[in-house]
Amino acid sequence: MSERRTVFFVSDGTGITAQMLGHSLLTQFEGVEFNQVTLPFVDSAEKAEECLARIKGEGGNGGKPIVFSTLVNNDVRAVVRRADALFIDFFESFIDPLEAGLGVKSSHTIGRSHSAMDKKEYQQRIEAINFAMAHDDGASHRELGMADVILIGVSRSGKTPTSLYLAMQFGVKAANYPLIPEDFHRMKLPEALRGDKTRLYGLTIAPERLHEIRKERRPGSRYADLDNCRFEVQAAEDLMRRDGVRSINSTSKSIEEIATTILRELHIKRQIY
Amino acid sequence: MSERRTVFFVSDGTGITAQMLGHSLLTQFEGVEFNQVTLPFVDSAEKAEECLARIKGEGGNGGKPIVFSTLVNNDVRAVVRRADALFIDFFESFIDPLEAGLGVKSSHTIGRSHSAMDKKEYQQRIEAINFAMAHDDGASHRELGMADVILIGVSRSGKTPTSLYLAMQFGVKAANYPLIPEDFHRMKLPEALRGDKTRLYGLTIAPERLHEIRKERRPGSRYADLDNCRFEVQAAEDLMRRDGVRSINSTSKSIEEIATTILRELHIKRQIY
Repeated sequence: MSERRTVFFVSDGTGITAQMLGHSLLTQFEGVEFNQVTLPFVDSAEKAEECLARIKGEGGNGGKPIVFSTLVNNDVRAVVRRADALFIDFFESFIDPLEAGLGVKSSHTIGRSHSAMDKKEYQQRIEAINFAMAHDDGASHRELGMADVILIGVSRSGKTPTSLYLAMQFGVKAANYPLIPEDFHRMKLPEALRGDKTRLYGLTIAPERLHEIRKERRPGSRYADLDNCRFEVQAAEDLMRRDGVRSINSTSKSIEEIATTILRELHIKRQIY
Repeated sequence: MSERRTVFFVSDGTGITAQMLGHSLLTQFEGVEFNQVTLPFVDSAEKAEECLARIKGEGGNGGKPIVFSTLVNNDVRAVVRRADALFIDFFESFIDPLEAGLGVKSSHTIGRSHSAMDKKEYQQRIEAINFAMAHDDGASHRELGMADVILIGVSRSGKTPTSLYLAMQFGVKAANYPLIPEDFHRMKLPEALRGDKTRLYGLTIAPERLHEIRKERRPGSRYADLDNCRFEVQAAEDLMRRDGVRSINSTSKSIEEIATTILRELHIKRQIY
């Protein structure tokens, strides 16, 4: 018997924090099927009542609904708490021990997280995104020296998503540069990358997985051919090893795992929180 | 007197969930300066000891350090808990009430969140990122019909970061299309967008802010001129209104807030969690 529950992520902001922590807790319960609903921007008594009505209306399918809340305002929270639900409160549970531990009262201010209040952080983020876009796939050598990291690897090894994630989540400037057959024949890194190698980081991938991905894009091509994938991956790994470039195998890793590993191994400080 | 604390985000995975929730709690304490350290991939007793040593070594600056933990494994957590710190536990605090509420034992499996375990979700995410890249700034009309949303707005109104975020965080396929002076002279939407308007969504921005952003890129240009920014924003807003395209003012909003609002208003279901 597979259980079914409706889960609500309720927040006075975007609900992204509630979703992320809630989801990470729910992954621990394998037999249960969760229907997930996000109720963002619940920042007034009136919206709290609407929210309560939705939980009452939609929460009834299956067992008692679960509410993950990051609501900051006590009055708003009190309304939503009236729901007949398992109420998991990420804010209230920790703000008291934090106040006690810090010896400081909290401001109980709504919408601090994921708001655009810190203009400097916001600009660093946008600049990093623009940088990743301008330096995707070796598109430009201009200001390559400003990169915090330059990802290298064969086509479809995961460089673009990783660069974008580094920019979006951490405000880190990431360029990416493809390793192509010409580089393998010369067995040298592309000219633009031969300077400061300490900022290079390699992505590698299982040839079988690369073959699958490339086949989707260009079926029947030499590009997608398994033997060619084997050759390219081997040659790219040889090149990285010869030049002392650290690398990670992206085959069974998420973008988050790859990006976090790169920050740690290259000692790059995140620019935004 | 501004207090100073060192904060550790400790996780057996990437630490991104611990950071996000921890950071949203810390924003509630304005007078305190936090030095933030992330210790990811703490997934063995040995790494737990290293982690403990780092907390002891680096935590001493200022008051007692704070540890935000999403550690799943009881043995690993027990080691880190020996630190002389305020220990805020996101996992242990909620897994018991969830087990009781669901009537199911949790699997206590490490690294479930942000791991690439769900291959279908992973592919949807990568496809959405590729789609956003291929359809950035009106680059391609091909498969525009597959977009979940097409963002429109003047140059530098925030379309690209929003499209990428929708893809990265929600697996939603977002194209974006610039509104340019030619469109304003004709007072018609670009031809490619005149079909299904229900998937269009507008970004608008305060002319003064747009002027600032454009000035950074092309100082002294007509493009950046404040009067021209005023004209473009007004014309774009008129166009959107005339064609019944919903819009949001991005001026003081974060990428997360804009993306969340779009999902909600267009009733788009997120594809990944």
